[in-house]
Amino acid sequence: MKLVTYRLSGAEHVGALTADGKGVLPLPAADMNTLIETMTLADLRSAAAAAERGGAVPLSDVELLAPIPRPRQDVVCLGMNYRDHAEESARYSADAFTKNSTAAVYFSKRVSEAGKPDGVIPRHAGLTDRLDYEAELAVVLGKAARDVKAVDAADCIFGYTVLNDVSARDLQTGHKQWYFGKSLDGFTPMGPVLVTADEIAYPPALEITSRVNGELRQKSNTALLITSIGQILEELTGGMTLLPGTIIATGTPAGVGMGFDPPRFLQSGDTVECAIEGIGTLCSTVI
Amino acid sequence: MKLVTYRLSGAEHVGALTADGKGVLPLPAADMNTLIETMTLADLRSAAAAAERGGAVPLSDVELLAPIPRPRQDVVCLGMNYRDHAEESARYSADAFTKNSTAAVYFSKRVSEAGKPDGVIPRHAGLTDRLDYEAELAVVLGKAARDVKAVDAADCIFGYTVLNDVSARDLQTGHKQWYFGKSLDGFTPMGPVLVTADEIAYPPALEITSRVNGELRQKSNTALLITSIGQILEELTGGMTLLPGTIIATGTPAGVGMGFDPPRFLQSGDTVECAIEGIGTLCSTVI
Repeated sequence: MKLVTYRLSGAEHVGALTADGKGVLPLPAADMNTLIETMTLADLRSAAAAAERGGAVPLSDVELLAPIPRPRQDVVCLGMNYRDHAEESARYSADAFTKNSTAAVYFSKRVSEAGKPDGVIPRHAGLTDRLDYEAELAVVLGKAARDVKAVDAADCIFGYTVLNDVSARDLQTGHKQWYFGKSLDGFTPMGPVLVTADEIAYPPALEITSRVNGELRQKSNTALLITSIGQILEELTGGMTLLPGTIIATGTPAGVGMGFDPPRFLQSGDTVECAIEGIGTLCSTVI
Repeated sequence: MKLVTYRLSGAEHVGALTADGKGVLPLPAADMNTLIETMTLADLRSAAAAAERGGAVPLSDVELLAPIPRPRQDVVCLGMNYRDHAEESARYSADAFTKNSTAAVYFSKRVSEAGKPDGVIPRHAGLTDRLDYEAELAVVLGKAARDVKAVDAADCIFGYTVLNDVSARDLQTGHKQWYFGKSLDGFTPMGPVLVTADEIAYPPALEITSRVNGELRQKSNTALLITSIGQILEELTGGMTLLPGTIIATGTPAGVGMGFDPPRFLQSGDTVECAIEGIGTLCSTVI
């Protein structure tokens, strides 16, 4: 199922897209975090079937929000998790991005409010001159996870969405740790949908692309993660309890703005489209 | 007021310590996050006075928990924010800790459940050989903060507590970004109380110490922060909205385990006491 959070007549709801993608079937949960915690796939299917009998809401009548507009905790992110992106990053700044080992790079991103599909990315002109995009596959956990082995990781996954890990490269590198340069308001567009895990063969091998003003910038496949989803979950849950609703952004492939020579950072008016096969296209405009 | 979260007869409550510190006055809020969001200092005083007429619960009858047992978002942390600690860190690992600029180092720490006073720090023996302590003054925000100037920062502060930013040095340095090595389960003991901001002159100039097995390890003063609380709030809120309940750990002074030659990391059975003048002593035992 393709789950969405949407606004209709001023109120926020969760729902599922109809098979033709043109309608929304309201689901009985207060918000997506609650849905993830309380509803099984069977519950979702039966609630969607019941809603379908009442008639779907036309998608054109609603305002889509990020599938999880207010993540309960910061988004866990992987850095340099595609080989070609690790290389372009080290060329941009050896000091900030050279890895001395094969260990995964984990950091986090504060997301008080995730950006909506067809929404905006604030330019933050006074703060950064190096605004950049990163198309990423985000994994959303469905249950509390501790000491999960890689072979069992799929059981913890509720679904997948597209996330643009917007980054202020000057803040990211200038403060040594990346947190601030990743966490500015509006830096986490997400969506358009949260696809439940049953719809995507595990491990996901999906084309991932980004375009800026229509020009292809990133093109890769989520099968090429250096640290796989299973390895990520095994390593993190070996020491940390990850709660239901946890969002893990698995890293971005080559082709981000800082990877070009000279770099091609985002400017006001640019549109960024991040797309993943089987999930959808997340479009944002820099303002 | 000195606010606490405590367990009594299996249920969790929030309350205020009596003037003599021997009793707890129950306060009418579901949890500390709700209290911070919904109650003014005047509300708290009047609720405490009403509770006092009903009689305080003896402190010895309750189990104190962390003042904010389940922070709504990750804890925002400052790295290398006391000069003497920045120096000892760079001696330990130039690669991981040398700062090339005066910019503040911000990172975050996942805290699904904060450790309670007189609680435990899990040793995580299979994961780390370099378990370390960091006594820190934590600032808790009382309102949503965006574009706050340093001179106005005090208005955003709800209160202060003691936080032990427990760290696995090998994971912290081995994964380049510090997130994983800071975020293991049990790595954030907090408390024993959350002191409301009216009780502490701003900016806080409080003696901060830590002891391991009774031996003094850290001793400094929170007036010595390199990046002050006002500067932190001005910089972060210049780009990020910080929500009520946000916890900012302001950094630790010299004297952590990795600062010794040879390093003196924590072992099972060690007790760690982090104390800040006017707030209290947070004691934890490594298991």
